[in-house]
Amino acid sequence: MDTILTSPTKEVHIGPDHPFVIIGERINPTGRSKLAAEMAAGNYERVRADAIAQAQAGAQVLDVNAGIPMADEPAIMAEAIRLVQSVTDLPISIDSSVIKALESGLAAVKGKALINSVTGEEERLEAVLPLAKRYGAAVIGISNDESGISQDPDVRFAVAKKIVERAEKVGIPRENVLIDPLVLPVGAVGNAGPAVFRLLRRVREELGVNTVCGASNVSFGLPDRVTLNGAFLTMAIANGLTSAITNPLEDSIRKLILAANVMMGHDENCMRWLKSAREAARAAGGADAERAARRERRGGIAG
Amino acid sequence: MDTILTSPTKEVHIGPDHPFVIIGERINPTGRSKLAAEMAAGNYERVRADAIAQAQAGAQVLDVNAGIPMADEPAIMAEAIRLVQSVTDLPISIDSSVIKALESGLAAVKGKALINSVTGEEERLEAVLPLAKRYGAAVIGISNDESGISQDPDVRFAVAKKIVERAEKVGIPRENVLIDPLVLPVGAVGNAGPAVFRLLRRVREELGVNTVCGASNVSFGLPDRVTLNGAFLTMAIANGLTSAITNPLEDSIRKLILAANVMMGHDENCMRWLKSAREAARAAGGADAERAARRERRGGIAG
Repeated sequence: MDTILTSPTKEVHIGPDHPFVIIGERINPTGRSKLAAEMAAGNYERVRADAIAQAQAGAQVLDVNAGIPMADEPAIMAEAIRLVQSVTDLPISIDSSVIKALESGLAAVKGKALINSVTGEEERLEAVLPLAKRYGAAVIGISNDESGISQDPDVRFAVAKKIVERAEKVGIPRENVLIDPLVLPVGAVGNAGPAVFRLLRRVREELGVNTVCGASNVSFGLPDRVTLNGAFLTMAIANGLTSAITNPLEDSIRKLILAANVMMGHDENCMRWLKSAREAARAAGGADAERAARRERRGGIAG
Repeated sequence: MDTILTSPTKEVHIGPDHPFVIIGERINPTGRSKLAAEMAAGNYERVRADAIAQAQAGAQVLDVNAGIPMADEPAIMAEAIRLVQSVTDLPISIDSSVIKALESGLAAVKGKALINSVTGEEERLEAVLPLAKRYGAAVIGISNDESGISQDPDVRFAVAKKIVERAEKVGIPRENVLIDPLVLPVGAVGNAGPAVFRLLRRVREELGVNTVCGASNVSFGLPDRVTLNGAFLTMAIANGLTSAITNPLEDSIRKLILAANVMMGHDENCMRWLKSAREAARAAGGADAERAARRERRGGIAG
């Protein structure tokens, strides 16, 4: 069954019969001190630019995080969401660990949003699930609980199952739950890859729900993270992953995801692939012309 | 069970618990007119260079094809194999549709080779399987037969099954058969990806044999074939593919395969990944130094 998110004009389907959904991760002040300072000061120019750029690069949902120390997170969350929805037509993923910020975001957002996130911790389940129910939102369920993140995939599966069941108990249908199986860093945990691939299959087959992943944790501490993240995403898609919170502005990742859609049979007549290749050729042609002009300007010295 | 190939000094294991095996495809005169002319004239310098370069780039087996129109293929095959084994320590894949060339190659090769290939066609089964048995070689079984290449994956599975059973009947154990499920071009056959992924799983689960693929047919007719081939290979590895005949000199493919090994838990402590990254950094450092020197030489004009 599809997980459907909406904006006033768009409906995004997340599910095994649809192209992979990129949830753009850029609007997040964590680790971006300039963005944090600007958002805290009520300057949303960078938020606006990030929203537009990610939408153009193929994000189908935009994650909005307003977690800035000492700032009024609920107010900034609402403001950022309003701004993002004024410059794009995409559904929103409301990203906070602060309940008041989630509430404020849910009140401000137009359409059916995604709450990012709930865990299997009792306190979080009790605080977040009623919000998802009240607003008819979808919710990301992360498979950790009071005991932390288990390295045992069976424990993580049990947590995912608990979240889905608790959601159903408060009246949230399981198609409104996206499970994040949690990817551990392969550099530290040797079987992190096989564990998460197997979890993705079990979540699909045994729980029948859709999945989402953060794409970069897997490569933590290793060199050439982009290649590792790209390989991970394509392999996870081959194991049924339906969406990821990632950066569509990272071109090699964006292209591998488009290629994975082709390989999954989710790009009819390869239309998106061909369109992307045409745009890349046009951009490269522009760059070639620019280089030629520069050579011309400096009198024929080859670059 | 592992498919084991050997050279006088090396043993290569192909199987689900081992790093993915690259069978280097470059020593093949098909479509390489210079190489064809040289080999026909008894000049093996390019063969030598291709063998060394592929071994350095991580190929664990080298495919040798001597299919040159009007030339003495059996003699050239033997000569090329002797040369390749004199400059590398890798097992050989003997690649021909000419039975006499396979025989000549098998007589010349040192160690346990791979015969590339047999199909499900009656005539081929009768000619090739006894050779594999006689020389104790492994053999690639390609899942097409007299009726051609079926678009129906169930038909291709049935052909694969027939090949494995016929091999066992003449005394070739199934671990000596590598099935090539045949990848159709995704540009022409929309479900080519899902079909081959499912086939790979069935061959593993129902026949218990290892698999091999050509990696480039999948992208036939489409732009940016390297990205498509890379996505295909990682996704096929996630579905159990154990080896591929491909070009390790294509750097992005080579890196994605190394990344896939990490993700499958087949790169202990990420040692190969870290080694490859160190070598890339050293090469990039060298290139930077070279660029700086060039700038110096032309008097400080930025490149």
